[in-house]
Amino acid sequence: MKPPHHESVLSRAARILEAFSSDEPALTVSEIARRTGLHVATASRLVGELTAHGFLSRDEDRRVRIGVRLWELVVRASPALSLRDAAMPFMEGVHDVVGHHVQLAVLEGEEVLFLERLSAPNAVINYTRIAGRLPLHASSSGLVLLAHGPATLKERVLAGELTAYTPATPATPARLRALLAEVRRQGYAYCPGYVHDDALGIAAPVRGADGTVVAALSVIVPNDRSAQAIVPVVRTAARGVSRVVETSAARGTAAG
Amino acid sequence: MKPPHHESVLSRAARILEAFSSDEPALTVSEIARRTGLHVATASRLVGELTAHGFLSRDEDRRVRIGVRLWELVVRASPALSLRDAAMPFMEGVHDVVGHHVQLAVLEGEEVLFLERLSAPNAVINYTRIAGRLPLHASSSGLVLLAHGPATLKERVLAGELTAYTPATPATPARLRALLAEVRRQGYAYCPGYVHDDALGIAAPVRGADGTVVAALSVIVPNDRSAQAIVPVVRTAARGVSRVVETSAARGTAAG
Repeated sequence: MKPPHHESVLSRAARILEAFSSDEPALTVSEIARRTGLHVATASRLVGELTAHGFLSRDEDRRVRIGVRLWELVVRASPALSLRDAAMPFMEGVHDVVGHHVQLAVLEGEEVLFLERLSAPNAVINYTRIAGRLPLHASSSGLVLLAHGPATLKERVLAGELTAYTPATPATPARLRALLAEVRRQGYAYCPGYVHDDALGIAAPVRGADGTVVAALSVIVPNDRSAQAIVPVVRTAARGVSRVVETSAARGTAAG
Repeated sequence: MKPPHHESVLSRAARILEAFSSDEPALTVSEIARRTGLHVATASRLVGELTAHGFLSRDEDRRVRIGVRLWELVVRASPALSLRDAAMPFMEGVHDVVGHHVQLAVLEGEEVLFLERLSAPNAVINYTRIAGRLPLHASSSGLVLLAHGPATLKERVLAGELTAYTPATPATPARLRALLAEVRRQGYAYCPGYVHDDALGIAAPVRGADGTVVAALSVIVPNDRSAQAIVPVVRTAARGVSRVVETSAARGTAAG
């Protein structure tokens, strides 16, 4: 995609940062140019400037990465850090008992964004990653966040494309609508094989001081009937996190 | 501090990001202007642009924060994420057994930068934070990283200011030099009361595929003699992380 002509430096910088991903955290300048549609000379000059300010850094082999200084600035004042801090003791507890994957996610645009994930070696397959995204309709976290999300968002998602990842994915508006009502009624989402046949997600809402749902706490475990016993563990942990989030809000600490 | 006259947009953007901290993750535009030395009008225009690109976001009460989109871009391709992923199972294990604080840190400039921290409720006092820094000479992680760091860095730190946080802090060049030799010889740092009278740090090196020290794994526990028993736990975990980092490097996965 060619950039617009009089594009601002910040817009170009944003596109350069977007060129990196978890699969490709290191890129050459020509790869950056190709991905952003910038001329190599422009990309090279901008990479130089961004490196000078610590936004990017260069390996010995001249490959470019996100800079540790930028990571530091963003993470230390991160909007996610206080929520994550509140959740971690509970997530660790669930992880000790359940194993596999324990995750914390928030609504971001029309997708789920994962803030944190604890995984055991040899855990069941799971597509989530820290700072990774999944669609709202297919994942247990997404269903919890959508069920408690704005009505306008619900309508947009119901009217949009509902990809079926497996035969079990809720991929019709009628089924998704019924499922969202069920998630609200029962207080959690239980999703056998929605994203992958072998995996089952269970998610429960984390609420802020005013009772609104601010996040979803979830586990991904093998897709079998024994998973039902894990539901109360997830619900209890999510309530515990909500309690801490409320208390920090009351103390005046930023909680989101 | 007044900015230089023909300062670039990126340089100003960097100073705006630097204005946020873990203590103050949300600022008004006039606070940003005050902290960066920019005119309010300039700060306001830049905050607008940075918000449009997702670098910053605004609360309902108009306070400005680091943007979730920027967090996502930086964390998903973070230079720290693969090291953190390798370390987390071991850190969780140590945290289950030892409690208090378990941390992962790297050398950044002339300081320790903490990538990850697990903390128990009611743990002993600890000044480290995720994406926070400590001086090299006073913390157990810093001593491990400095002991195995470049000779030039060692000389600069030995010639620089060595702040004494407590009577126990190694605050003279002679004592620090002896301590660094000891850390190298014994394979870990044992630091009773160096940063705070009540706390004791124990750190061990994490090595990359080529044997160089890439990080320090540490615990902060109460400052009493029972801490000595924790040394083998920390050393074993740090060796485990090194093994995983080596293996991922051999498989071609980015390991730093």
